Amino acid sequence: MKLDKLVGERFKERPSDCTVDSHALMVRGGYIKYVANGIFSSYMPLKRITRKIEQIIREEMDKIDGQEVQFPVVMPATLWQESGRYESIGKEMARFTDRNDNPLVLGMTHEEAAVQLVREYGQTYSKYPFMVYQIQTKFRDEARPKSGLLRVREFTMKDAYSFHTSQEDLEEYYKKCHKAYERIFERVGIPDVVSVKSDSGMMGGSVSHEFMLLTDIGEDSVVICKECDYRANMEAAANIIEYDKAAPSNNLEKVHTPNQHTIEEVCSYLNCDQKSSCKAVVYQRNADDKYIVLFLRGDLEVNETKLTNHLGFDIHPAEITEDCGIVAGFIGPINLKSDAIVLFDHSLKGMNNLVCGANETDYHYTGLDFDRDLQGAEFYDFAKIQEGGICPVCGKHSITISRGVEVGNIFQLGTKYTKSMNMTYVDSQGNSEYPIMGCYGIGVGRLAASICEVHHDDYGPIWPKAIAPYQVHLCAVRADNEEVKACADKLYNDLLEKGVEVIYDDRAVSAGIMFSDADLLGVPLRVIVSPRNIKNGVVEIVARDKSFSISAPIDTAFEEILKNI
Amino acid sequence: MKLDKLVGERFKERPSDCTVDSHALMVRGGYIKYVANGIFSSYMPLKRITRKIEQIIREEMDKIDGQEVQFPVVMPATLWQESGRYESIGKEMARFTDRNDNPLVLGMTHEEAAVQLVREYGQTYSKYPFMVYQIQTKFRDEARPKSGLLRVREFTMKDAYSFHTSQEDLEEYYKKCHKAYERIFERVGIPDVVSVKSDSGMMGGSVSHEFMLLTDIGEDSVVICKECDYRANMEAAANIIEYDKAAPSNNLEKVHTPNQHTIEEVCSYLNCDQKSSCKAVVYQRNADDKYIVLFLRGDLEVNETKLTNHLGFDIHPAEITEDCGIVAGFIGPINLKSDAIVLFDHSLKGMNNLVCGANETDYHYTGLDFDRDLQGAEFYDFAKIQEGGICPVCGKHSITISRGVEVGNIFQLGTKYTKSMNMTYVDSQGNSEYPIMGCYGIGVGRLAASICEVHHDDYGPIWPKAIAPYQVHLCAVRADNEEVKACADKLYNDLLEKGVEVIYDDRAVSAGIMFSDADLLGVPLRVIVSPRNIKNGVVEIVARDKSFSISAPIDTAFEEILKNI
Repeated sequence: MKLDKLVGERFKERPSDCTVDSHALMVRGGYIKYVANGIFSSYMPLKRITRKIEQIIREEMDKIDGQEVQFPVVMPATLWQESGRYESIGKEMARFTDRNDNPLVLGMTHEEAAVQLVREYGQTYSKYPFMVYQIQTKFRDEARPKSGLLRVREFTMKDAYSFHTSQEDLEEYYKKCHKAYERIFERVGIPDVVSVKSDSGMMGGSVSHEFMLLTDIGEDSVVICKECDYRANMEAAANIIEYDKAAPSNNLEKVHTPNQHTIEEVCSYLNCDQKSSCKAVVYQRNADDKYIVLFLRGDLEVNETKLTNHLGFDIHPAEITEDCGIVAGFIGPINLKSDAIVLFDHSLKGMNNLVCGANETDYHYTGLDFDRDLQGAEFYDFAKIQEGGICPVCGKHSITISRGVEVGNIFQLGTKYTKSMNMTYVDSQGNSEYPIMGCYGIGVGRLAASICEVHHDDYGPIWPKAIAPYQVHLCAVRADNEEVKACADKLYNDLLEKGVEVIYDDRAVSAGIMFSDADLLGVPLRVIVSPRNIKNGVVEIVARDKSFSISAPIDTAFEEILKNI
Repeated sequence: MKLDKLVGERFKERPSDCTVDSHALMVRGGYIKYVANGIFSSYMPLKRITRKIEQIIREEMDKIDGQEVQFPVVMPATLWQESGRYESIGKEMARFTDRNDNPLVLGMTHEEAAVQLVREYGQTYSKYPFMVYQIQTKFRDEARPKSGLLRVREFTMKDAYSFHTSQEDLEEYYKKCHKAYERIFERVGIPDVVSVKSDSGMMGGSVSHEFMLLTDIGEDSVVICKECDYRANMEAAANIIEYDKAAPSNNLEKVHTPNQHTIEEVCSYLNCDQKSSCKAVVYQRNADDKYIVLFLRGDLEVNETKLTNHLGFDIHPAEITEDCGIVAGFIGPINLKSDAIVLFDHSLKGMNNLVCGANETDYHYTGLDFDRDLQGAEFYDFAKIQEGGICPVCGKHSITISRGVEVGNIFQLGTKYTKSMNMTYVDSQGNSEYPIMGCYGIGVGRLAASICEVHHDDYGPIWPKAIAPYQVHLCAVRADNEEVKACADKLYNDLLEKGVEVIYDDRAVSAGIMFSDADLLGVPLRVIVSPRNIKNGVVEIVARDKSFSISAPIDTAFEEILKNI
């Protein structure tokens, strides 16, 4: 392919709306074109990259006996009503009606379609286990698409669904798939992806893992123990508390704390540690705005995922009205005059000598003792684990917290979908049973962007060989020079004949423009034919990642290139 | 792959809702699963077939300098408002709104997206010509999906868009693409596809061709001249008329035709040829139900495509009310008391001695003379050409009419989209011009079904080698026999090692079940290892299309198989 025919624009200026590098470089390099919020078209260089990623995924899925199928993008609402998700999923799911007013949805995941596909096939135990997967476009109406291909509304995803007759069999397959994912991330050039325990969210099921690529621009917080193997998404990480009750307990005493609203202000005013305070965070139930007041130790933050999972319904930060009985800034567990749902984080269990709000403007209590003053309170884990916190596995103060991008996920779904959609099989004893499912996803576009995020410099992406749009970027600097042209043309044709993917730049532009375009295309190997090189009897062969630079004699340049592909 | 692990059911009974063979065989063979009206999931055998078809298409598109890109499935309505098609396209386009009430559409074709992708890139003449294409899911809310994959609502399509600076350049590229299409249809096993002139419909533009696979179950009528090269879709075929005015003209006379409503009844009653009658066909404008009365020679049928193109708006067959002034069954061009739009087919031009309705119940006229009685009438071509009709090219009575399935289409679009979407380039003189576009489509699933339609027998599809889901179907009849098992296992492993796609049936089922399953999978080469064959020291190698059957000595069976792949 000649570069001057490559459709797409390349330019130098970082677009002002790009907050992450992969987004900026993909726009600057002619990889993507904005169509609408969270919706992009792809130019050929990206399409070549994603097709290679897809092929790697396909090979690894086939290796673990996956069967490639295809589910529809558009599905009847009835299918989602069977599982109950037509009601339980919110605005993320696009809904519309066809010309006959039948309600339809756009697929954002395909558990229902998978069950529908195999429900008749999987009626006897001898058919199990099996796994079907597809690589297909999906649409999820994200509230806040951003960061280019990292968070979009329309995306291509590999989604796989496995079916089993026992939990043991699922677990065995789950491990196999975990290994296949490791191979995929290694092959596409990001072997340092880590898997972490995750929250299963709307997918249902219990055990699940996310594959995280650690990078500062990641939206997820990843909890990693320095001492043992423990890794979890912040959302799913248990927050272990060491109880250190102070003795003796002071008396409960109301103190004047004029205009001291935040926990920082109050603790500073009363000259106490935030750890010795009991703070309140207030939410409201989405459905009816009922208040939820959560108390936790002053130095901790709420893990809203754990809170939502405990409650079993969706919530939002509260708007505290004048007549609701809650006194913003002075909320405490004693004499709270409200019909709110009141919850306690286990960081407060058995604690004493705490500062808390007095439910009265400008007043707090000191000397709160949970054992004495709030008998019968129940405590659960609602807080985020902190840097230096206690590892739930090895028990050491060894927790570190990093940012990560989720590039894949695997779920043990159990029987949630087979039960609700009434898929059964007859086991070897003649009993009717529900198959146990697993599901396994990888977003292709996000993976490409993530790879770019960790493999780039200021000038462009540095694509790993296995997914690079081309293997060789051939530059004929001053192609109007006959010797340069002849040498470069010959290399181009020889490489093409050898089946090498080569992009050939023989435009009448400066070496500077040529090289900055080459940087933006990020091809692993650059080959430079120029008047000076010709004079020296050589061709330059340079790695995009700067790991080497060779001046190869013209006669052997072709072999030298092949050696370095 | 072992057959006993292949997800999907195969069975013998033809489903009652299948009117065409490809639909029945694809359901019976475990290729597709109904999800909703015109929406299917694909099992692995079909997915393997469509991926091979896609790869062939991709290679041929790349050969004519196509660049594979990807447009979104979901697009903002604003994009379609730019071209005007958001308004002009009816219910076929699925529309919905996102969480922020922004109107979105599902892509049914991507001219708008293509222009949006390259509008900035293509600003100077030196960038031209170029072509971008994608292979992507589309949704078209068909009123009447039917015939399995032949007429669906969701489908995978290759759609290509080329951009040019002159009509000549477009025409040259159009021819190139025509040739690429011929290669594609040849490679996928249907070299006898013919291209026909077609109506451009909602795509706009003037010249267009459809690629038709001739088969009795086709929905399209294909007009072919036996004497010359002329081929056209019935919709687009000109209907040539030989004028044979009878002399002399009789007088116009009102005659009593009690209860004679249809043209057949009237002509029989008055003992005249239908060719000597002037019949009326009545439509209504979709927008406001205004009547359109079309008169044409009694033996001809209306070509509604030509009629709609002439009118420039959509119509439907009329419902004739009592007060509209139109007397159903007795409509004629004289004294028609209605504000209908009145049109005349050119088959009536200059004709005389015709029977026509008298616009009065139970009365017709005889002796109608258009030159005398309807001076000033204008005549256009609104009728369907007939078997034995006159070829518009060579002028002979050599027209035949066949049924065909449209498996591809190519359009010269002109500047319809670049103008409406304001895409311009600067030419070599410094003038601003609109690029000229072509577009080129192939439906992948319909192509697979069409191939099945012309390549099958009563027992299953007979897939052409290039697209077959597997190359070899290995049957171990009585795999419980140790010798059979050993021989078949060895062949299986040897073939796999050689990279041959082989499906291996070693189930404990009868040879009958094995072979009927093999018939349904339609793999080109069947290899049978059985106790009897082993006893005779041979392996049977049989072509699915019955073109040959070999008993190969066990020792050389492997080579013999490879030879026949």
